[in-house]
Amino acid sequence: MRRKVLTAEHLTQIQAIVATGRVLTDESDLFSYSFDGSFGTYLPDAVVQTKSVDELAALVKLANREKIPVYPRGQSTSLSGGPLPVKGGMVFDLSVMNDVLEVYEEDLVAVVSPGVLTAAIHKAAERRGLMYPPDPSSSHVSTIGGNLAENSGGPKGLKYGVTKDYVIGLEVITPEGEIIQTGGRTVKNVTGYDLTKLIVGSEGTLGIITKAILRLIPKPQQTATMMAIFDSLVDAGSAISKILSSGILPSKMELMDQASIVAVEQYEPLGLPTDAAALILIEIDGHPLALKEETKQAAALCQAVGAREVRIAKDKKEEAELWKARKLVSPAIVRIKPTKISEDATVPRSKIPQMCERLQEIRETYNIHLVVFGHAGDGNLHPNIICDKTDDEEMRRVEQAVTAIFKAAVELGGTLSGEHGIGTMKAPFMEMELGAAGLDMMKRIKHAWDPNEIMNPGKIFPVPGQKLELS
Amino acid sequence: MRRKVLTAEHLTQIQAIVATGRVLTDESDLFSYSFDGSFGTYLPDAVVQTKSVDELAALVKLANREKIPVYPRGQSTSLSGGPLPVKGGMVFDLSVMNDVLEVYEEDLVAVVSPGVLTAAIHKAAERRGLMYPPDPSSSHVSTIGGNLAENSGGPKGLKYGVTKDYVIGLEVITPEGEIIQTGGRTVKNVTGYDLTKLIVGSEGTLGIITKAILRLIPKPQQTATMMAIFDSLVDAGSAISKILSSGILPSKMELMDQASIVAVEQYEPLGLPTDAAALILIEIDGHPLALKEETKQAAALCQAVGAREVRIAKDKKEEAELWKARKLVSPAIVRIKPTKISEDATVPRSKIPQMCERLQEIRETYNIHLVVFGHAGDGNLHPNIICDKTDDEEMRRVEQAVTAIFKAAVELGGTLSGEHGIGTMKAPFMEMELGAAGLDMMKRIKHAWDPNEIMNPGKIFPVPGQKLELS
Repeated sequence: MRRKVLTAEHLTQIQAIVATGRVLTDESDLFSYSFDGSFGTYLPDAVVQTKSVDELAALVKLANREKIPVYPRGQSTSLSGGPLPVKGGMVFDLSVMNDVLEVYEEDLVAVVSPGVLTAAIHKAAERRGLMYPPDPSSSHVSTIGGNLAENSGGPKGLKYGVTKDYVIGLEVITPEGEIIQTGGRTVKNVTGYDLTKLIVGSEGTLGIITKAILRLIPKPQQTATMMAIFDSLVDAGSAISKILSSGILPSKMELMDQASIVAVEQYEPLGLPTDAAALILIEIDGHPLALKEETKQAAALCQAVGAREVRIAKDKKEEAELWKARKLVSPAIVRIKPTKISEDATVPRSKIPQMCERLQEIRETYNIHLVVFGHAGDGNLHPNIICDKTDDEEMRRVEQAVTAIFKAAVELGGTLSGEHGIGTMKAPFMEMELGAAGLDMMKRIKHAWDPNEIMNPGKIFPVPGQKLELS
Repeated sequence: MRRKVLTAEHLTQIQAIVATGRVLTDESDLFSYSFDGSFGTYLPDAVVQTKSVDELAALVKLANREKIPVYPRGQSTSLSGGPLPVKGGMVFDLSVMNDVLEVYEEDLVAVVSPGVLTAAIHKAAERRGLMYPPDPSSSHVSTIGGNLAENSGGPKGLKYGVTKDYVIGLEVITPEGEIIQTGGRTVKNVTGYDLTKLIVGSEGTLGIITKAILRLIPKPQQTATMMAIFDSLVDAGSAISKILSSGILPSKMELMDQASIVAVEQYEPLGLPTDAAALILIEIDGHPLALKEETKQAAALCQAVGAREVRIAKDKKEEAELWKARKLVSPAIVRIKPTKISEDATVPRSKIPQMCERLQEIRETYNIHLVVFGHAGDGNLHPNIICDKTDDEEMRRVEQAVTAIFKAAVELGGTLSGEHGIGTMKAPFMEMELGAAGLDMMKRIKHAWDPNEIMNPGKIFPVPGQKLELS
């Protein structure tokens, strides 16, 4: 049995602090907090649900004094192990802090509490003719707090950037239990170090975000969608480059390789050409008059580099049909085998064809079922390995394949993670990308802020000799 | 006479390290490095000019060992004292590192060395149909290294954000002389803490940037410009809000108050209405078809909230004429009195009318010559005080007025500095905005990275009891 971190006395103290919320300690309750969208199961000692920032800060003070690990958690859709309570201790269930969602139209900002679903922010902004651009695929089920911790991306990263680009202020509980404000309500702010952008994407290791100020933009008036089908992956890559260098900046450019096209057609026949090497889905947004012309131009560019066919949606209904292909990739591939390892290795745009070739080699070398799709417009591919986690022999090949994917991305000038985060799974590969000195500068910040290592321990930073283990 | 930091032995060691560059120690040479665009004169002990990153790193190692202050410096256009060698020691003249300016069209990135002028990056990008959006007013004379250190803004912040939003990777010499790489060539990167965005805007206190990878975007096809003239500052503020909430996102929205209109007309008659309370200059960019419609719509919105007159430029020549008014503000106001204190206090957009009122009160209370203009679209005003630094009595009133401006900005939910940085001048006001705990978290990073406090000391962080001194 796992050794518990919390003593009976600790629990009494925790109960005394949490006056307005709940403390869960029943094993059956704790189990729901032991996993996320990635790998591994770790039971916490207690789960706290409270909307009170003061109570949370008091708990962090206690945790810091008693060296009790603390894990902030949203809806646990993390694909990298961000919220896993790997060293026991307390989970803070921040999904209950879902009551603040204020839109200030004149300032073009929204103020939100961490438990609000990202999709709710999209809706609230749109009701006022505004837009919160970051759109991770999980936005209907993930909290903004989780998006902030992981600096979530999504297909719109190409034109609009990622979560971090829209966060201008935070309220944060530091690892020593102080409540600080960073940034504010202005887009321009150079008063001291940018703690806001340091904390966003730090995976909950530098503090607990209890409020965020998000920048909104006017909502584009209209969107247009097209699908271009290619007999060669290299041609698809060229089309993406040509469009971007023509002066058109699409809001989305998504790639699906043959394996993902086949998977979708087998799952639900949509009339996709299963003999095509790749397809790209392009969305352009903006002023209706500009859209018409840009759509024509983008279609012509695709044809000029050898697209077999270009389908342009005539209305919203046809747009939705085209996007359905991309939306079905994830459900389609989990039908093939029960375990899906979703990677997000990202390369410079020009290296996408090369990365696709490397992935092809990896597929053959390790004899794995590999499906490639993702946000090709910003170099953020999603190589997904379909496997069965109960098959030890297969999982060892998967471990080697995942390692090879990371290596390929870094060798091509890219990064281990474009949008999922490092968490537990990618920690062993940090030094490969950052070098010892680069990693050391990150560790110094962690130690300076969290000397007792209580804030979401076991994430980002590898322990010496740590290796990827999936089997 | 000032006590020197460098001994003769230090100088011998420095000379030995700088094999490919120059070490200046002549008082006449040093004088050129003793000031910037702000206040105060501080002579360094030596100035190093070298293009070699290894030599600079070796110098930093020496400096760290011997506790010699080091100051990275570009073209010294800083308005906040960023590069001032306030504690003696070595200045690194990075303006000589101007030889790398590579544009990678397919990746939509530029790789630059710190001494390259920002305007040269604009040109290099434009030649390829691309754009590097940050456009501080000093871009023709300031280096990208200085822009990176200060996280420079400019009028395009409204639509395109600031320098930080376009930096995706850095090469940096740490305060202990290690060379690290942060980020990379991908727009999406969540591998560990975002050291890139921490270092950009840290005013040279966390390391020396020796290379940067900048994100570029497709250049908008066309621009349109209009000037709207108002009898009331509040109406001008309303026009800005109305335009933004109509779905139009202009590339620039600049405000000039009556004092700046009058100053420009006295300097060079352009036919501006000197009896108007304010004017706003609006630039919209994008697709030609969309522009036409949006320009009409924006003009109608200005008229609907009470604009006395709206002038729309018919061609590039007329565009340039309208912008001339804004461009002449700075040269016009320095004609009035020799000293110009240029502030950049920034407030949430909706608070611009209130901030204008507070500035009016400050003008009267302290009997100062105050001119207000700036980037109203993003809340980043530039209250400029015109004075004579040899007049002690006047400068004491100016000190009080500056303090009052900072207070007003913070009270309205804004910030001390939108784009100029904290440097030496605003350090005394840091705790007012950040609180003791917030400032402490910044100091911890500084101490963890630069334990011997050699990297651009005397900036950002106040010494106990430090006050603004201009007289």
